[in-house]
Amino acid sequence: MFRSVTLLCVSAALACAAEPQISPAYQDAARRLIEAALKDEAGMARLQYLCDQIGNRLSGSASLDKAIKWSAEEMKKAGLQNVQLLPVKVPHWVRGAESLAIAGPVSRSLPMLGLGGSIATPPNGITAEVLVVTSFEELAALGADKVRGKIVVYNQPFQGYGETVRYRSSGASQAARLGAVAALVRSITGRTLRTPHTGAMRYEENVPKIPVAAITPEDAQMMARLSRAGVPVKVTLKMEARTEAPADSANVIGEIPGREKPEEVVVLGGHIDSWDVGQGAQDDGSGVMAALAAVALMKELNLQPRRTVRVAFWTNEENGTAGGNGYRDWLGDKVKNHVAAIEMDGGAEKPVGFGVGSSAGRRRAVAPGAAPTTPARPPVKDLSAAAMARLGEIAKLLAPIDAGKISLGGGGADIAPIMALGVPGLGLQTTSEHYNDWHHTEADTFDKVNPEHFRQNVAALAVMAYVLADMPERLTDLQ
Amino acid sequence: MFRSVTLLCVSAALACAAEPQISPAYQDAARRLIEAALKDEAGMARLQYLCDQIGNRLSGSASLDKAIKWSAEEMKKAGLQNVQLLPVKVPHWVRGAESLAIAGPVSRSLPMLGLGGSIATPPNGITAEVLVVTSFEELAALGADKVRGKIVVYNQPFQGYGETVRYRSSGASQAARLGAVAALVRSITGRTLRTPHTGAMRYEENVPKIPVAAITPEDAQMMARLSRAGVPVKVTLKMEARTEAPADSANVIGEIPGREKPEEVVVLGGHIDSWDVGQGAQDDGSGVMAALAAVALMKELNLQPRRTVRVAFWTNEENGTAGGNGYRDWLGDKVKNHVAAIEMDGGAEKPVGFGVGSSAGRRRAVAPGAAPTTPARPPVKDLSAAAMARLGEIAKLLAPIDAGKISLGGGGADIAPIMALGVPGLGLQTTSEHYNDWHHTEADTFDKVNPEHFRQNVAALAVMAYVLADMPERLTDLQ
Repeated sequence: MFRSVTLLCVSAALACAAEPQISPAYQDAARRLIEAALKDEAGMARLQYLCDQIGNRLSGSASLDKAIKWSAEEMKKAGLQNVQLLPVKVPHWVRGAESLAIAGPVSRSLPMLGLGGSIATPPNGITAEVLVVTSFEELAALGADKVRGKIVVYNQPFQGYGETVRYRSSGASQAARLGAVAALVRSITGRTLRTPHTGAMRYEENVPKIPVAAITPEDAQMMARLSRAGVPVKVTLKMEARTEAPADSANVIGEIPGREKPEEVVVLGGHIDSWDVGQGAQDDGSGVMAALAAVALMKELNLQPRRTVRVAFWTNEENGTAGGNGYRDWLGDKVKNHVAAIEMDGGAEKPVGFGVGSSAGRRRAVAPGAAPTTPARPPVKDLSAAAMARLGEIAKLLAPIDAGKISLGGGGADIAPIMALGVPGLGLQTTSEHYNDWHHTEADTFDKVNPEHFRQNVAALAVMAYVLADMPERLTDLQ
Repeated sequence: MFRSVTLLCVSAALACAAEPQISPAYQDAARRLIEAALKDEAGMARLQYLCDQIGNRLSGSASLDKAIKWSAEEMKKAGLQNVQLLPVKVPHWVRGAESLAIAGPVSRSLPMLGLGGSIATPPNGITAEVLVVTSFEELAALGADKVRGKIVVYNQPFQGYGETVRYRSSGASQAARLGAVAALVRSITGRTLRTPHTGAMRYEENVPKIPVAAITPEDAQMMARLSRAGVPVKVTLKMEARTEAPADSANVIGEIPGREKPEEVVVLGGHIDSWDVGQGAQDDGSGVMAALAAVALMKELNLQPRRTVRVAFWTNEENGTAGGNGYRDWLGDKVKNHVAAIEMDGGAEKPVGFGVGSSAGRRRAVAPGAAPTTPARPPVKDLSAAAMARLGEIAKLLAPIDAGKISLGGGGADIAPIMALGVPGLGLQTTSEHYNDWHHTEADTFDKVNPEHFRQNVAALAVMAYVLADMPERLTDLQ
């Protein structure tokens, strides 16, 4: 109790120390940005073009190349300066034809999506009996004698994306370690209409590689019920998936150069690549197009901030993060001039505020006992209480659209590499009511983006980026 | 105002005239039936077997034959008497291979489901530009010059199933009348994850027959957006659909013979056939299995009513109603001994009560200006106010499961033929929150049936059927 009170006092004192207050100074700019954002048509029009006329955009695909070139042109048309493609090599995984068929008791083909990074099956497929488990613990307890030669089906319950995605990421290797010949993973979602969700997987070193695919929650449960009823279930999995030589790709950036400190940068963006299903509308067409719209509106309103505002469309977020890493490498020492990085990669539902990267947030994001699913990232440096208070001040400007919540824990996969080098990172957060229903599926299409919510996201990005780029101090100066 | 008050008084007076009150007399039986239903395991177990081990069951399919034979065995195992298969001939439509591909701007295959009854395309398919409309009125206004040679895409908004389904039923003929070469209908649903919904269609006489398929709301909207953007959209539709000679099928019935008036019957049930997608779990596996469970529980509890309670699994509801018509024909003059008919064919979500067939309900069900979608049914005779009051009395017994609402308008396609001959018809009604999401899709699977809600439906059917079969008077005696 004593400790909490102390901390509150410290917070309040630091907030007071951060005078002059930011809200009054930026009230007019914020009002203009929000008003313009809520009337914006260009952002949704660009997103529609991207979705309908370019389509989904997996790393290495012709459509990603097309999207990247088109993005640069759109940035130029919006009046941004220093528009550049920053070349990076990206992994090039190709799905190929794929299918899953159940032999009985009701013989039929089942909807599925191979997981990104999986190897192929032999041309005639793999036919084997399934072994259904609900957890890694259950699999381990069964042991190699039971698992050998089987196709392991993970029928884990959905307990939130962060907690459940490890079955997708490392399910293949965990099964292969015990002699399984393939793995099928229940799609990571709480709501489904027989909808498979793809996503990245990773083979562990020194473990045999086996093919792995996502199946629908419906079919995972069906196989579990049949197994419990004592009915043996045999399936045939066919996948032509292959990994080709790394492909050429690029991040796309464009800027409003700062009027006083052009060398200092606030970067905001999302990722231009997507999975090879649906239209990559929420993930993450909405993020890149909202970021571009936010910067385009500053330009239109002649709001040129003190520092440079840079919009970035990173490539290859989905299966490699080569874009985010490449951006860090391209920056080199200039990373120290990055005042803040803002990512929108959680879809364009109603925005609620921003999550701020912190070591605490990072720790919380990994569930206790969870297998590591991505290479461990270096810790993120915590912002000072004064900087957090300042973010709270800025967020107050978003009260008109009810998006003024600042919370600990946030950022984005594309900005994680520069956050690890000390750049304060913020992730736009939404109500995220349906994001996981659409995520990595054929259903991630333009119609899922509510235009009003999209425009609110544009407003939130614009206000946050503008004030961070214009205010006298850098966030990291506030101690 | 005056009129309303008068009607209320009339209602109240008639309710009082219907003494003795039913609720107290049947409180104990209802309590026992509800208690047993809420603990019942057999109903869900049978539904699971039907879904997982027999699967979907289109008229004419081997799986429907299997389901019918199995159903008769299950009725016998549950102790029902006079278990019979009542043979009927059913239409035999076969889907065959089918596909839809869009040529550009993003060339790819699109999810689709041919509509039941559609003819095939030529083997190489039909390739043509699409013409997107949102209503029959818009199509008519465009006229033959614009429609000729096109594939008409109906992108009608979802305004409830009853109002919107006419595009599925008669969209092909309306387009063909103006020279269209095929039609694609936006699936009849308010929520979608790129989910096509099949269903029956009907060709009008003297209009050329053209192939017709359901597409997803996502793709209908995508084509509409491209058309509005001035981008011509060309698609290739391939369908092997064919209608074979009528097939042998059967209704399945089983009974608890009445202890005093075995010749008088309360029939309850649903339809054993389904579309050829998903598992036919909600539509209508849940209906037949809940009806059987309700009657099986009466048997278990030794509740033998005054009149016969008959469970009926009608065949061919989805594409012909041959089962319901065949049942009427099989009854012949005995239809006058049918005290009531109860159908459950709206899924097994939380039950709220019963809809009572009435001429008013029938009139309401057809929207103003709607094209006729099914052959006009003869009007249903309204029940007297006293009979309605009695139903309200019985429904009070369902208060413990909050399923005691009696409303006007209800019944079911399978009981419509005998309702037209004067048999009072009731349709079990639920919250129907998600029924249309699953209806006629690959997602109509066992996992969608909430066991608790299923059991509440069993309870509602059991109590209503038992009291109607046991109470001294027939509903139609109450005047």
